[in-house]
Formats: sequence, structure tokens, C-alpha cells
Amino acid sequence: MSFKSKQLNRLGLVQAAAAIEQREISSVALLQACLDRIEERNAEVAAFVAYDSKKALAAAAEADNNTQLGPLRGIPFAVKDILDTADYPTEYGSPIYQGHQPHQDAVCVRLAKSRGAVLLGKVATGEFATQTPSKAKNPLNLAHTPGGSSSGSAAAVGDYMVPVAYATQTTGSIIRPAVFCGVVGYKPTFDLISPAGMKDLSPSQDTVGIITRSIEDAAFFTLGLHGAATVRTASLKPRVALCLSRQWDYVLPETMRAIESLVHHLESAGCTVKRTWLPDEYDTLLAIQPRLFMYEARHALVNERILHGDQLSHRLQTRLQLGEHIEYDEYVSMRQQVREAQQKVETLFKGVDAVLYPAAAGEADEGLASAGDPRFGALWTLLHLPSVSFPIDLGPKGLPLGVQMIARYGQDTRLLAVANAVTSIIGPVGPEVSG
Amino acid sequence: MSFKSKQLNRLGLVQAAAAIEQREISSVALLQACLDRIEERNAEVAAFVAYDSKKALAAAAEADNNTQLGPLRGIPFAVKDILDTADYPTEYGSPIYQGHQPHQDAVCVRLAKSRGAVLLGKVATGEFATQTPSKAKNPLNLAHTPGGSSSGSAAAVGDYMVPVAYATQTTGSIIRPAVFCGVVGYKPTFDLISPAGMKDLSPSQDTVGIITRSIEDAAFFTLGLHGAATVRTASLKPRVALCLSRQWDYVLPETMRAIESLVHHLESAGCTVKRTWLPDEYDTLLAIQPRLFMYEARHALVNERILHGDQLSHRLQTRLQLGEHIEYDEYVSMRQQVREAQQKVETLFKGVDAVLYPAAAGEADEGLASAGDPRFGALWTLLHLPSVSFPIDLGPKGLPLGVQMIARYGQDTRLLAVANAVTSIIGPVGPEVSG
Repeated sequence: MSFKSKQLNRLGLVQAAAAIEQREISSVALLQACLDRIEERNAEVAAFVAYDSKKALAAAAEADNNTQLGPLRGIPFAVKDILDTADYPTEYGSPIYQGHQPHQDAVCVRLAKSRGAVLLGKVATGEFATQTPSKAKNPLNLAHTPGGSSSGSAAAVGDYMVPVAYATQTTGSIIRPAVFCGVVGYKPTFDLISPAGMKDLSPSQDTVGIITRSIEDAAFFTLGLHGAATVRTASLKPRVALCLSRQWDYVLPETMRAIESLVHHLESAGCTVKRTWLPDEYDTLLAIQPRLFMYEARHALVNERILHGDQLSHRLQTRLQLGEHIEYDEYVSMRQQVREAQQKVETLFKGVDAVLYPAAAGEADEGLASAGDPRFGALWTLLHLPSVSFPIDLGPKGLPLGVQMIARYGQDTRLLAVANAVTSIIGPVGPEVSG
Repeated sequence: MSFKSKQLNRLGLVQAAAAIEQREISSVALLQACLDRIEERNAEVAAFVAYDSKKALAAAAEADNNTQLGPLRGIPFAVKDILDTADYPTEYGSPIYQGHQPHQDAVCVRLAKSRGAVLLGKVATGEFATQTPSKAKNPLNLAHTPGGSSSGSAAAVGDYMVPVAYATQTTGSIIRPAVFCGVVGYKPTFDLISPAGMKDLSPSQDTVGIITRSIEDAAFFTLGLHGAATVRTASLKPRVALCLSRQWDYVLPETMRAIESLVHHLESAGCTVKRTWLPDEYDTLLAIQPRLFMYEARHALVNERILHGDQLSHRLQTRLQLGEHIEYDEYVSMRQQVREAQQKVETLFKGVDAVLYPAAAGEADEGLASAGDPRFGALWTLLHLPSVSFPIDLGPKGLPLGVQMIARYGQDTRLLAVANAVTSIIGPVGPEVSG
């Protein structure tokens, strides 16, 4: 393949890393292609909230010169604006923090840099990583939401502005926007990527993850971050369980059909797909999750609530007020119930590698007033299990429909291998962004 | 009781809160007594690293004027210098952060203020909450360590400079210094006090807690923080299990005798005390703990390691270097083993309210070069269980010997009630600090 004939910003992370390693392309050229794309599209897509060509190109030049940097050498990455950066202001999606400049990088940002990756800039977040939307738009159709709260991460990666972006999830803030924008959302096992330097929202649930354009890229970046140089792939016949639950009442028919079709596809390819019903006891957990969230968020945002309450959105003010009526004893009891469920959830994975579950009700909602329904991520985030979402088909509006796969605690590497096998079976899913 | 005849700085938190509520004393007078004590003793004890009489007295005056403030109205508190404060520099016990001024309070600090408590200042921490000692001394004998890493918290409370101080524990950094300084150390269930604004060290273990001079005070402060106004006490005959393990090889004979004597005391008072042997599988966990710590600390301190490596202590540099040789796969496996153990640990509490375990090998070590052996906290911190330590006798050097009690996940309120019953049975333990 000649890289000159291809828009470099469209390269996947694995491809790009190999090409840089083999000196087929330079990191500077790759960065420039990403910057060109941002220049061309960001006024409309509004994925990036801060970037600096000079800083990024200087870091890329350094990566080109220093071949010892590590497995992510020369790879551009973007950072959700809920994570601190020393090079760029960090505003947490809130006017309270306009121009706020942290003194140092979040750990995951510095870690990526230490492995050779090049910080391209900051991407939009919903207000304090809640569902109050950012200004980012869905690159596949600008009249639609990119989802939230990792709206900028999904939009920037989906629009080929950058191959990978950090994202965070407390309910469904990675997996849903990824599917809305036709990309891959990976929420690791809780705290597998260090949370230090992330603005806390609900500390028992907040998880740092990433958005990429392929599962292979997600695996490569994560392993690279931890200093492992190679992606472990496996030739697999995935064994999965389609997990049914009352939450399916909220799934649109087109998503149901797409998931049914996926199951059929997998079975035809020789995979085992069983169907399980989510035990009723998990309904309690689903009822607990928003209350646990409200109690913890009320604490986590105590400074903002007390010192700058009038600058919180009405939506967030309301949620925090609801948290006021939750007693300490109830909070402790909720935490205990969650811990018990974390123990029992193992049984869901008996005989299978992963569970299949909806990632969103349907396509990205029209309009930018709502970031969509995060509910399908709630249970898995609460239980600290790794999950990965990806598009599987197109819906009636021509936008992606997706699914998520969830695995046992800590089985991230296996989950990504299994999900990779699944996406190989279904093949590429459109549509293409313009430009 | 006439409060005028008593040094107000020696009042417990519960007493002080009631006296302020009933206008028997003012918060200003209480603060002034604490400040006088600091002026008198801090040059020697070196517990406080920053305080400001003017700021503290102004906040106390406000607390006196506004009776609506909350259950902690007018109570002075100190903050371990590993937690961010907007009013004071926060140096994390490291020269790297000399004069560093966070832009806002850690959540637990702002929360205490919002309940009416008055921030008195910052107290010393070991380097980044590790065992590299601070300059604080043991108020009971200045030639001895106060323990670490919450050295300043334990020394300040033990020396009657302040009735309560925030502390943090990753291995044994609350429970050990508390015992060394003859006070009470309470490490809540993991994240029950929000960790936002704490400098991360090993995020899967780091826990915010408090040091007070009585268990009742610890309960009152914690419940007050969560907005609950009353301490729930119970007339209890505690049922406890004395948990034996290989770690007892490191316990000095005087501590063994003190714990045996405590058991005898409890049995004479009609309490049930059974003896259990810690199952062998926990030995694996104890072996895992330092490796998990090193891996996570290497990530958490990535900025400092890369940008200011030469300003880390030799001790910490060595530990972080050891972390380099731990592979990602081993890390994930350790996290999985910990999660499994968190499930199985329930069985240790069968038929009992709490487990009795050593809090330290013996009395506070002589000299200030070592902060003592943190090992006795490792297992319980890793398992996210609440624990509380307190003195039970004096050792051959005239310094306190102590014990810790551990309860099931989330059973903090019960743990404190049971521990309170135990301390009532054994009565007060000397010695008295000078001054």
C-alpha cells in the first residue's frame, strides 16, 4: 500500500504505528493530516474544544526523532475535556471552569505521552461528564447528537480527526456515543486505566476508557499504555450469551432486528450463541444505579454546588437536589448490594466468553438537545465489568445501530479478542462521513 | 462541668459540638485554645505544616454566628497534606510540590466545611502518603516516630492540637500512627468518604479516613459529614473473632500479651471471643499487595517520575523501579484475585460482629528514620473493609500498644458501635502527653 495515495488521517492506529516504525510515514505527516481534517471540519462538528498545531507538530517531530519512545510512538491522541492536561485548559464542559489550567496531566495522558503518543488536543464533554450535551455534533449527520457524555471523543474519532481519544463512562458515556458515531467504544474493567486527574462524578462507577475506529486499535492502545508492545489476537469461535432483560422494552425494533441478525450471522459462522434472561435481582440494581449516582455526584460536585451553583445547568441542579434526600444508610446499603452483585454476576458468564447486550436504543437521536439514553451501560459500569461497543448495521435514518459485548472482571484482553472475531464475521458497517 | 476550668483543646468532638450548640463555649474560643496549643508545641512536634490563625478564627466566628450550618458547626479539623485545600498550599510531602496551591478543596474538606466544621490547617504526610517519613514527631515521646504516612494527623490529634484530622491509608497509614500516638484511627469502607482531591497513590486501595481521640468522635464526624446529626450507639455484648495469621510472626510479645489480656477482659465482661486462623489463601493476597501497590504507584506518580524523578526519595524511587518489572497481565491477574477474595472474606465474619487483629508490631519505633511497619493494615485495606484501631495498653517503653477491629463491607456504623463497647470495657489507656 502506498501511504501517499491515502489520506493519512484515515489510517487506523495499528497501521499508523507500524508505518511510523518502518519509516513509511512520519508522525509529523500523520499529525498534519489530522490537523488538516480538524481545520476542515471542526467548525461544523465541534468535536475539539482546544488544539494547538504548533505544540502537536513539535511533539510529533520529537517522536519522529526518538525511536526509543515506546509502542505508541508518533500516534496522535485526543483527550476528553474531563481529564486534566498541562498543555491545554480543562473546562469539564462547564462555564465554571472557563480557562481553567490544571498544573499537570491526568495520569492516563502522561502515560500515553510516555509511551510515545502525541497529544493533539482536547475534545468536548457533556457538563461534568453528565448527559447535559456539549456542542459537538454527529459527524455522520450534523443534525443528530453524537451521544454523550464522551461526545467529542466519539465525534472526533468518527470524523477521522484523530485515531484514538480518551473517554470516560459513569453510566453509558463511552459505549453509546461510539455506536452513534459508528466507531468502537471500550470501557475497561474499573480503574484498569488510572483515574487520577479525572474530574470525579460518581467515584464508585467512573471509568476511563477509549474510543477508536477498530477493536484492534483499542487493544493496541491499551496494551501500549501498559507497556506491552503487541496485540494478542486469537482465531476464535466466540461463545456468547444474548442477555435479555426488562431494559429491552426500551430497545427500538430496528436494533432488535439488527441484533437478531447478528446472532444469526454468528451462528452461521459456527459460533455458539445462547440466550439468557437477566435474573430479576438485577432489576434492583438498575433501580439503585441512578440513586447511587445522585448521592455520589452530590458529594463529588460539592465545591461547584456550593460556590457556583447558579452556573450548573438546570438539569444537573435538579439531579443533585434529588440526591439530597438520599440518606447515608441507604447509600451504604446500595454500596453493599452492588458489592454482592459484583460477586454473583460471574454466573452470567457460565460457558461463554462474553455477553451481548444493546448499547443504545437505536440510531443517534435527532437534534442536539438530548445526548440519548445511557441506560444500557448502567449495569455493566456499576459491576465494574469490561465492555466494548461497535456498530453492527444501519438503521432507517442511515445511521449506525450497535451492540456491546461484556466480559468477566479483568478479562479485557479476551473480550477484545472475541469482539474482534465478531466484527470480522460481520464485516464493515457504513456509512461514511463526508469530506 | 465548667468548661472555663478545662483546656478547651482537650475537649472531644462530641463534647465540643454539644457545648457549642448549647452556647456554653464558642467556636472561636475552641479554635483559640487549639491555636495556643499549636503555638506552644508545634515547633517540637511538627504535626502542622501550615495553619493560619486569622483564617481559622474568621471561619470560627462565622460558625458562631450561623447556627444553621450543620452537625459539625464550629468543630476545628485538620487535613493531611495529601488532600487538596484551596486555603493552604498542598505539598503531598514532597519537595516537588513546594508552595503548590490547588485551585479547590478536596471533596471531603469542602464537605466538612459545608457541615459547619472549621479548617484549622494542614498536617504532615509521608512523601506522597508512602512510608518515607515526614518531620512530625510522636507527641508522647519526641524521640519516637508518630508512624506514617498519616503522621501529622495522628500527632496533631494525639497532642490535643485539634480534635479530628483527615488521614489516608493505602496499606496501614491510618491505623498504625493512631495507635503509636495513643488515639483512634478509622479507615472506612473503601470510598465511603469521597476520594476526589486526594493525590492518588494506589487507586484500588487508597482510602480516606479520620483520626480522633475517641471512637464516638470518629462516628460523630463521619455521620456529620454525611448529614446525619446523631450518633447511633447500642448497648452491646460484642461478638468478636481473634484472627490469627502468619503475620503474627511480626508481632512483638508485649502486643501479644496486651491482645490476650484484652480478650480475657472481654470474655470476663460476657463477650463472645472466638479464635480463627486466617485461611492460607490470604497469604497469596499478602504477597500480592506490595506488587499491586508498586504497579499502581508507578502509574499514579508517572508525572513526578518522568518530570521530577530526581526529587523523589531514594526509597520511593526504588519501589517505583521495582514496579517496572511487573507485567500488565500479572497486574490484571492480581486485581482479579483481589476481587475474588473480596467475595470470600465474608466467611471470616460468620457469627461475629468484627475481627480483632494487630494494628502494629509494638510501640512506636525509636528514631524518626522509619515510620514503622504498615503490614497489619494491608489485607483489610486491599479488601475494602472498614477498620478502626485504638490503644489497649502501654508497652515497656511507656508508649501505647493497640489493636484494630475490622467488620464486613459497609458495616461501618456497627463496627464503630462495637469498638466503642470494647473501649468502654477496657477503660482509658495512658499515657498523657506533656504540656
